[in-house]
Amino acid sequence: MTLNPCDAGFVARLSAALPEGRIRPPEPRYLEEPRGQWQGRAGAVATPASVEEVATIIRLAGQARVPVVPFGGGTGLVGGQVMADGPLPLVLSLERMAAVRAVYPSENVLVAEAGTVLARVQEAAEEAGRLFPLSLASEGTAQIGGLLSTNAGGVNVLRYGNARELCLGLEAVLPDGSIWHGLKRLRKDNTGYDLRDLLIGAEGTLGVITAASLRLFPRPAAVGTALLVVDGPAAALALLALAQECAGPALTAFELISGQGLRFEIETGFDLRQPFDPVPDWLALIDLGCMREQDPQELLETIFTEGHAAGLVSDGVIAASEGQRAALWALRENIPLANRRVGAIASHDISLPLSAIPAFIEDAGRRLARLGAWRINAFGHMGDGNLHYNVFPPAGRSRAEFADRKAEVTRTVHDLVVEMEGSISAEHGIGRLKRDDLVRYGDPARLKAMRAIKSALDPAGIMNPGAVIVPG
Amino acid sequence: MTLNPCDAGFVARLSAALPEGRIRPPEPRYLEEPRGQWQGRAGAVATPASVEEVATIIRLAGQARVPVVPFGGGTGLVGGQVMADGPLPLVLSLERMAAVRAVYPSENVLVAEAGTVLARVQEAAEEAGRLFPLSLASEGTAQIGGLLSTNAGGVNVLRYGNARELCLGLEAVLPDGSIWHGLKRLRKDNTGYDLRDLLIGAEGTLGVITAASLRLFPRPAAVGTALLVVDGPAAALALLALAQECAGPALTAFELISGQGLRFEIETGFDLRQPFDPVPDWLALIDLGCMREQDPQELLETIFTEGHAAGLVSDGVIAASEGQRAALWALRENIPLANRRVGAIASHDISLPLSAIPAFIEDAGRRLARLGAWRINAFGHMGDGNLHYNVFPPAGRSRAEFADRKAEVTRTVHDLVVEMEGSISAEHGIGRLKRDDLVRYGDPARLKAMRAIKSALDPAGIMNPGAVIVPG
Repeated sequence: MTLNPCDAGFVARLSAALPEGRIRPPEPRYLEEPRGQWQGRAGAVATPASVEEVATIIRLAGQARVPVVPFGGGTGLVGGQVMADGPLPLVLSLERMAAVRAVYPSENVLVAEAGTVLARVQEAAEEAGRLFPLSLASEGTAQIGGLLSTNAGGVNVLRYGNARELCLGLEAVLPDGSIWHGLKRLRKDNTGYDLRDLLIGAEGTLGVITAASLRLFPRPAAVGTALLVVDGPAAALALLALAQECAGPALTAFELISGQGLRFEIETGFDLRQPFDPVPDWLALIDLGCMREQDPQELLETIFTEGHAAGLVSDGVIAASEGQRAALWALRENIPLANRRVGAIASHDISLPLSAIPAFIEDAGRRLARLGAWRINAFGHMGDGNLHYNVFPPAGRSRAEFADRKAEVTRTVHDLVVEMEGSISAEHGIGRLKRDDLVRYGDPARLKAMRAIKSALDPAGIMNPGAVIVPG
Repeated sequence: MTLNPCDAGFVARLSAALPEGRIRPPEPRYLEEPRGQWQGRAGAVATPASVEEVATIIRLAGQARVPVVPFGGGTGLVGGQVMADGPLPLVLSLERMAAVRAVYPSENVLVAEAGTVLARVQEAAEEAGRLFPLSLASEGTAQIGGLLSTNAGGVNVLRYGNARELCLGLEAVLPDGSIWHGLKRLRKDNTGYDLRDLLIGAEGTLGVITAASLRLFPRPAAVGTALLVVDGPAAALALLALAQECAGPALTAFELISGQGLRFEIETGFDLRQPFDPVPDWLALIDLGCMREQDPQELLETIFTEGHAAGLVSDGVIAASEGQRAALWALRENIPLANRRVGAIASHDISLPLSAIPAFIEDAGRRLARLGAWRINAFGHMGDGNLHYNVFPPAGRSRAEFADRKAEVTRTVHDLVVEMEGSISAEHGIGRLKRDDLVRYGDPARLKAMRAIKSALDPAGIMNPGAVIVPG
């Protein structure tokens, strides 16, 4: 089915159907993505202020067969928010729909519009004495609509789940322009197909999320953080099991850190206190959030002591103050920034069955070594089986020299991930970057079902065409 | 699209395509459901032993346009497992596929076939030193396939979530006879549409779940239970907030009990020790599962003391032994049995936004009082906003006398639930019992999307026709 461009005629019709100022020419920021891999294009940017206006836009786009690209905070890493080819699209930004519509502290629920920035939702929860646990590097920019559309992950998934698990209900405009009023605030609701979880993670290809009811949690009474030196990924895995047995749901994060990441921080001039000298090869960062009658320091000491006795942990620090906690977390959080300064040839957002992680790190290193003398920084949310596995040029060389090796490196990594029953996109999604990989590695029955669902809900194919899956 | 009956010719073709003994005449147990509201019919029962055999059956049924009714443990309460009219269906039972295929203790994952009884999965988890937390009254009979297909709830949802949240991946046969190999063991996997959560809760109308990878958890180091007398539903709600603030995720269950339920137990001759005399009007049963360095008795005492100081709790008992725990839980677990002995005119499995529960109980009582002098037993998983709201005849009268009032009573209850933004099916599903209610109360945009998805994935309409939704 052919689509038509968002041309002057369509823009005029759209403008006439909406209040003044909703449709404007596209500024460059709507046409970019953080990795600079695609250059977006657009006939116009629509900034509706209500779900009814969104419905009007989608209805008119459907009638005119004009593609619509939903744009959130623009922080997505797989090109889901930019359409670089095909007929000129309309970019749809929900930035005007940024209200926290309601907070229900006694229900642990908050209702936010899709354009609300994550940090604002976190604040609103805190103002109500509650926690909204979704947390990731881009939280000052990323919007709820985009976070749900990509089923965002982050550092607290181990305890609280992905964005999907934090959402109780949605308001959305479906591709036919109808409004689904589904802002339920219920923990249990078994009334038919799970449209909510279908829109979550669909990256704007099955409709536009306009608001969401989100789960809040009691704030932990006390928190604690430790950075422990482990003998390797297998020891880290055993330590994770020990930490879970001790702390259960009080374990909010378990991050694997490789010495390479810390050495990159040193090499690229980050002013961070490195607690161990020399830099160890492998470390685990453990975060606890305890409720009452439970002391995180005691728990961390137990984990350290038992981990040490079991030969898993050789050294470690337990933060004794909020400042020390922040300093330990800074070591983890600056790794992606250091990576950027060094410049990766290829980076991979993968997940694996937990028990496969040690073998994966070993095998991937061995296979890649056959291709070149890379430096590898494997780190991430080990508690969720999620590694960021990034491949860098040898010291003193630049990524540009190896641009033609990227495909080969990625293919090697992804092949092994799939052999080990992992995922080639743990938390970033498919977007346009991994669309071909999805077809290559995806289960054929599932791909066929995905195409059938896409065609059924968006027969004209106007919603974010080219992202995730191409029907037909 | 017309369907054909499962007649002798089809049975012969099916038998020829499968190993000996897979197809047999329907015994009565496949044609019944616990509430005796429908009488099922079937041309035959198929009992495949592998996913390939299931695929063969579905493919042949699709070619012949013969309806297929998946049958699990048969414990469903909404008639999803029986087809009382239309062309004679094939009943598909996965009872031969009852293996726990693998347990991965270090990953907290277990892979079970769909025919595995829930109690067996719980045991296999325990043998590995882990917990599979799904727990409900029918766990000795209900099968994993049916539990997932209905997104079962139960007593531990507050802490661990519904069946959907306990499932990481599926193996399933889709309505076109293709096999989806989706038994992922991953916590994070953002590779396209969420087919898993779409099949979960679809009650066998979008395909047949043949196996699932399930989440396990560390077993709590210590457990504790208290039964507290509360001033009413509003006080119970405030107590829930207090318990969450104290115990956070250690709070595994928070059940509301009405005095009516306990009086029914006494009236119908259950030999239970009632800890309070006279029977209080409202009680809360609190269950904790603590990890190390955390004492459930201390936490329960804190909750009691602070609840008492706040005027929420007037009396209470904290179990001092496993026997006392079991005795407190027996008070809760025998309520449904006592209900059955009394005989409800109408029972409702509803959920509400937490903060609406006190007003709902008051308003529903008032509205129903205008219709008659009923006795009402409202109880259930208050922590999940899930009430079982059952309406009984006055003392000394029988339900049979009021059979003609049932529709009116249910309509009154469901109307109020929907007014208060609740759900008319919290955990039992839609099946055939609530199909018309779903159309009456459901969001039109969502219903249209559900019909489109059903038609897209099952264009011939062979999968459990008449359950959940009828495409238009």
